[in-house]
Amino acid sequence: MCKNHGVAYVKPGKVEVREIDYPKLALGDRKCHHGVILKIVSTNICGSDQHMVRGRTTAPEGLILGHEITGLVIEAGRDVEFIKEGDLVSVPFNIACGRCRNCKEGKTGICLNVNPARPGAAYGYVDMGGWVGGQSEYVMVPYADFNLLKFPDKDQAMEKIRDLTLLSDIFPTGYHGAVTAGVGPGSIVYVAGAGPVGLACAASCHLLGAAVVIVGDMIPERLAQARSFGCETIDLRNKTPLADAIAEIVGVPEVDCAVDCVGFEARGHGADADKEAPATVLNSVMDVTRAGGGIGIPGLYVTGDPGAVDEAAKKGSLSIRLGLGWAKSHSFHTGQCPVMRYHRQLMNAILYDKVQIAKAVNVQIISLKESVQGYKDFDGGAAKKFVIDPHGLIPN
Amino acid sequence: MCKNHGVAYVKPGKVEVREIDYPKLALGDRKCHHGVILKIVSTNICGSDQHMVRGRTTAPEGLILGHEITGLVIEAGRDVEFIKEGDLVSVPFNIACGRCRNCKEGKTGICLNVNPARPGAAYGYVDMGGWVGGQSEYVMVPYADFNLLKFPDKDQAMEKIRDLTLLSDIFPTGYHGAVTAGVGPGSIVYVAGAGPVGLACAASCHLLGAAVVIVGDMIPERLAQARSFGCETIDLRNKTPLADAIAEIVGVPEVDCAVDCVGFEARGHGADADKEAPATVLNSVMDVTRAGGGIGIPGLYVTGDPGAVDEAAKKGSLSIRLGLGWAKSHSFHTGQCPVMRYHRQLMNAILYDKVQIAKAVNVQIISLKESVQGYKDFDGGAAKKFVIDPHGLIPN
Amino acid sequence: MCKNHGVAYVKPGKVEVREIDYPKLALGDRKCHHGVILKIVSTNICGSDQHMVRGRTTAPEGLILGHEITGLVIEAGRDVEFIKEGDLVSVPFNIACGRCRNCKEGKTGICLNVNPARPGAAYGYVDMGGWVGGQSEYVMVPYADFNLLKFPDKDQAMEKIRDLTLLSDIFPTGYHGAVTAGVGPGSIVYVAGAGPVGLACAASCHLLGAAVVIVGDMIPERLAQARSFGCETIDLRNKTPLADAIAEIVGVPEVDCAVDCVGFEARGHGADADKEAPATVLNSVMDVTRAGGGIGIPGLYVTGDPGAVDEAAKKGSLSIRLGLGWAKSHSFHTGQCPVMRYHRQLMNAILYDKVQIAKAVNVQIISLKESVQGYKDFDGGAAKKFVIDPHGLIPN
Amino acid sequence: MCKNHGVAYVKPGKVEVREIDYPKLALGDRKCHHGVILKIVSTNICGSDQHMVRGRTTAPEGLILGHEITGLVIEAGRDVEFIKEGDLVSVPFNIACGRCRNCKEGKTGICLNVNPARPGAAYGYVDMGGWVGGQSEYVMVPYADFNLLKFPDKDQAMEKIRDLTLLSDIFPTGYHGAVTAGVGPGSIVYVAGAGPVGLACAASCHLLGAAVVIVGDMIPERLAQARSFGCETIDLRNKTPLADAIAEIVGVPEVDCAVDCVGFEARGHGADADKEAPATVLNSVMDVTRAGGGIGIPGLYVTGDPGAVDEAAKKGSLSIRLGLGWAKSHSFHTGQCPVMRYHRQLMNAILYDKVQIAKAVNVQIISLKESVQGYKDFDGGAAKKFVIDPHGLIPN
Repeated sequence: MCKNHGVAYVKPGKVEVREIDYPKLALGDRKCHHGVILKIVSTNICGSDQHMVRGRTTAPEGLILGHEITGLVIEAGRDVEFIKEGDLVSVPFNIACGRCRNCKEGKTGICLNVNPARPGAAYGYVDMGGWVGGQSEYVMVPYADFNLLKFPDKDQAMEKIRDLTLLSDIFPTGYHGAVTAGVGPGSIVYVAGAGPVGLACAASCHLLGAAVVIVGDMIPERLAQARSFGCETIDLRNKTPLADAIAEIVGVPEVDCAVDCVGFEARGHGADADKEAPATVLNSVMDVTRAGGGIGIPGLYVTGDPGAVDEAAKKGSLSIRLGLGWAKSHSFHTGQCPVMRYHRQLMNAILYDKVQIAKAVNVQIISLKESVQGYKDFDGGAAKKFVIDPHGLIPN
Repeated sequence: MCKNHGVAYVKPGKVEVREIDYPKLALGDRKCHHGVILKIVSTNICGSDQHMVRGRTTAPEGLILGHEITGLVIEAGRDVEFIKEGDLVSVPFNIACGRCRNCKEGKTGICLNVNPARPGAAYGYVDMGGWVGGQSEYVMVPYADFNLLKFPDKDQAMEKIRDLTLLSDIFPTGYHGAVTAGVGPGSIVYVAGAGPVGLACAASCHLLGAAVVIVGDMIPERLAQARSFGCETIDLRNKTPLADAIAEIVGVPEVDCAVDCVGFEARGHGADADKEAPATVLNSVMDVTRAGGGIGIPGLYVTGDPGAVDEAAKKGSLSIRLGLGWAKSHSFHTGQCPVMRYHRQLMNAILYDKVQIAKAVNVQIISLKESVQGYKDFDGGAAKKFVIDPHGLIPN
Repeated sequence: MCKNHGVAYVKPGKVEVREIDYPKLALGDRKCHHGVILKIVSTNICGSDQHMVRGRTTAPEGLILGHEITGLVIEAGRDVEFIKEGDLVSVPFNIACGRCRNCKEGKTGICLNVNPARPGAAYGYVDMGGWVGGQSEYVMVPYADFNLLKFPDKDQAMEKIRDLTLLSDIFPTGYHGAVTAGVGPGSIVYVAGAGPVGLACAASCHLLGAAVVIVGDMIPERLAQARSFGCETIDLRNKTPLADAIAEIVGVPEVDCAVDCVGFEARGHGADADKEAPATVLNSVMDVTRAGGGIGIPGLYVTGDPGAVDEAAKKGSLSIRLGLGWAKSHSFHTGQCPVMRYHRQLMNAILYDKVQIAKAVNVQIISLKESVQGYKDFDGGAAKKFVIDPHGLIPN
Repeated sequence: MCKNHGVAYVKPGKVEVREIDYPKLALGDRKCHHGVILKIVSTNICGSDQHMVRGRTTAPEGLILGHEITGLVIEAGRDVEFIKEGDLVSVPFNIACGRCRNCKEGKTGICLNVNPARPGAAYGYVDMGGWVGGQSEYVMVPYADFNLLKFPDKDQAMEKIRDLTLLSDIFPTGYHGAVTAGVGPGSIVYVAGAGPVGLACAASCHLLGAAVVIVGDMIPERLAQARSFGCETIDLRNKTPLADAIAEIVGVPEVDCAVDCVGFEARGHGADADKEAPATVLNSVMDVTRAGGGIGIPGLYVTGDPGAVDEAAKKGSLSIRLGLGWAKSHSFHTGQCPVMRYHRQLMNAILYDKVQIAKAVNVQIISLKESVQGYKDFDGGAAKKFVIDPHGLIPN
């Protein structure tokens, strides 16, 4: 039996690399003959991991983190028919059975069979079904024939692995936000947040043909990163109202559609930029989106938040100016991205050089050991997407 | 010059019938050669009129009410080309120019050219452009070629005028709620509210092929009305949680989709049924709608509400459990129904006897004089839709 | 080992009931641990079976017919996780793996993994993958977790089995034709063909809210059947041009959308009604569908037809007035219905009494022995849908 | 009264520039107070003009050609409210009233009020309503508020006039073909034809995010033009079957979707490249499009073609292998592009430098006098899009 190591959540503010069990084709008593064991080629640190690490959730000590996984199949369960040992594959962060009503409808983010507590599951995440995370050397992926996206050519894929590693979550997630907001050729879009999801969303808007992509954030390095691939930017610490800042760029104080890539840990804008204000982004996107526009909300909102600023927010209730959206006939699209709906097309966009997503989000490859520092830097606002290379397989 | 009389808002709780100006083909200085003068055949009292009459808005004294209009063309402006004198027509409550970007996209509820204050206009409504209301004998309708739906046969139409009068607002509005929620053949739907819009929505769900339509309200007469055409009902004053009440009907505590036909004047459920609690309906529909379901929100939410229960609600901010919807990947669809998107098909459904919408909402014909009493009865919760017949043209 | 009997194709014009192998969880060398064995409760004779029986295909002697199957699970393969012994289930006629790109996109009619010859497979059909047909006592269904629709309550289901048996093919197929043609509330529709698929399509149009459903055929009994549930009908043997016949019904010589439920064995209209003319239906639906309308084509068109009237048709080439459709901006939707996209909703519509599909298509229950006669009667134009009850389980 | 000159069709193979009437706000007896007079800034020669000039239609002697018009408003009718003198505007080639059912549904290519003969009209085209063409100095545009797209900044627009002039027809037309075929990020697309519409379609595919765009044609210069902006190309005169040629490029012999930008004057492929064979393109795109793929057909097919190769084609009937498309569940989308659905977004894509459409189709500016030679060169297969500058207003 091989050894295995992974990144464990220890306590608020602390993660560490531990020796962990080598994966089995099972989750506790639940047999997973439909699963495979992957030797992990790349596994990314995600902003939503930070929610746990900051102590904003009930994640237990010892939870192995990581839901953005790309790897090599080294063992396949007896019910796996089309995925083979040796395949290099991308793993959607949502775990899905492929057999329930929701999966059949393409809603793989809310599969009914993989989490007894509620629809939807993920690797290495609190309340998401107990599946072991993949910031490690080896991991088990269930329902492999359904879940996995096989890269057509392994050598070609390893050359573009910095880009392809983003197919497991943030590229589709940002893209989903853009699609649900209605972004298309000629759109003028506002993307709230220039973290990795925000940047991936901005790059997706360009891929979808958007005419102008405006990104708002409070961290200058992240805004600079957005400008590096053609976005307009707005520093939300400034006192200029957002609508006015938009008017300076496109001549009118509104956009066709908007994407909230921030979620519940939002801060106030302008003078309130140092205070947490969880409904700020939602209210501001209603303010600047034109009547009839769409609003995509890939940013995470939670049902409970023990670390929230007030009692209402602790229960997940936010003070939202819904009447403003109503007057403008807005529609709002929430929830986990169903990665499978998009990853094949986005893979092609990468393989045929239509998008440089790794550059857009500034991928930095680190070793498993360096992941502890990666978490710290990311929490500090580094304009980087940290990708762990646990076996040293990624070429420079 | 003919005389004209109409229903005027006087002060909170009071309306009266007054002599008013005979309409011109103009709105103040704005010439409306594209408009027509209608002799009104039927004009309905709407729940949204009640918001004004209850004093929940800044409606000025003397505002002539009425935006649900059906009538006979008696004069056509010089630039009207396809609508002719003698045509019997339905008037969408949204006023639209047919020439702006939003109208061209079919978003006639947020026309850019008919209200200097913001997108969207209506007849006889505060802050909606100043167009004179149609609870009167005569009214002017601008952009007549674009706005009006001509009935193909006048005699046939007069026979079904109790149904056709509902095409100007509540039938399409309820239908829009159902469509945006994703209702289709086989759907299990929850409709919040059994006022006229809720009942029209429930009837629309049946027309769309829904398998089960569950209607919730607090007024027994309205629930009885819903049962009269095949709906299941839930009395929200009961202490049974809504999800449990749904489970008693369909075996599971959730529905495929839900429609909020109540809006910002919502009350609490169960023990809190006597208190206004503006986010109750929104939060409860998220609770009972299955993961992946859609939520239509034709019920009105406002940007400001001087009579609201707390400071936040006065500014239109509601405490919404958005995290709950996010966890279930819900989407939310708000805004005025763009009547023109639906009225022709719904007219056909009426003319060919596919739907009995007048029975569903319990139309009662009254004279212009009786409208004052109609407002009172409606405010008291009568399970009726009051239709004013200002010229005594509607056959018994 | 149990005995098994099934309906075999012998030669053009001849079928017989034979003893056949009891099913295994395999197709030749291909293991099907993901499959189940069904004791068949009902299995219907389909118009597309007739193409084989009439000798219009290259079906081999001994092919066991039958792709419309409902049954009881009596054995489940080791990799079946959610379907259990004792479940009563509907089998979509399209066989699908649930693991390929097309299945993931909901295109289960063109699964890439179940037919080496080309995308798409079915039970008991020539060139459709070699899967054994189900007009028999027992049958094997592969990828059971993915393919099967379990009825929630067995007793309730047996009471409505005459309706539910139609979920395996013709109800969804007719419905798919209506949906792809764009039928919705208020539509005026022309359905070409009053065989079981045509009648199921007409009933689906009603379920979808159509205002007027006009059915054309040449067999008076079938037209009477259509009238029995509220359709208008046109006898295509008459010399009145189709457009004129439509105008007599709805006042204008065109419909909003049309569905071709006939396919390649079409005959001429009017004076040419006794001659096969394979493009007749397609050309006539373009003629009568309004500009901008949609055309659904669930009727089968083939890539080769040895028995065709001319050399071009033998290769599947038909003389189509595409320019006519182009001038009217028509869109055309072809192909096998992906049953899984619709069967759950349609099941609900049946279980909650929103549709009486068995009455619409005139279901007649027969024994396995009577199936030989059933084929003859159906070929003779009987206005019936024959449903075989191989174990005598269906209550009167 | 000003003078006016325009390009007139004289006889097959011959056009000439003539003095013509200065436009009135009328079409014969039909008053057009809703119209404007334009001083034409640019007006393009279109492939569909060639059908007339080659004598393939019943166009009468003296018909003034030209339906791709951009111009300056110099006079506005009394019913024009939002378009003003001095506005620089793009004219959709489809004439639409903005007041009929089809226009309200966004189907401006088949307006019901602008052509007594059938739905849909255009400037300067046989059987399209008799509206005077715009390859001239001045032209009248009816329903100006509805039809015209105003450029937001005249100076900026004149700088990009080579691109913006393509908004009146071929850019939206090619884009419509791509959209209806289902092209999106990551798609692998085959575009049949490298004339201006084919090239505009290919550029649109890139704008829509397509991964690979493969263009087929028989003229080396046009294929070189396609390669100049990143397309793959196939010379259809070669004997390699199309599917094999595609496999050489993308590894498999099929594409995700295909667009027919050729229409009824198609020629055979390979050895038959010198013969007209009107169904060749349609049959070949079915052959190479994957099961489940979409097929857009912006290329013109006609209801009658006096110059066709056989009797069937003279009546617009083509021998189409529909069974092949049916087996692959293809859908087919035909008809004139409704320009208004797309021109605003595509204008933004041009103004914000997301697309270089003038370069893609190789715009060449010519004077009105040079238009006679332009017709000849274009008919000879020049890989150019000729744009007439009748007043010498376009800067070099």
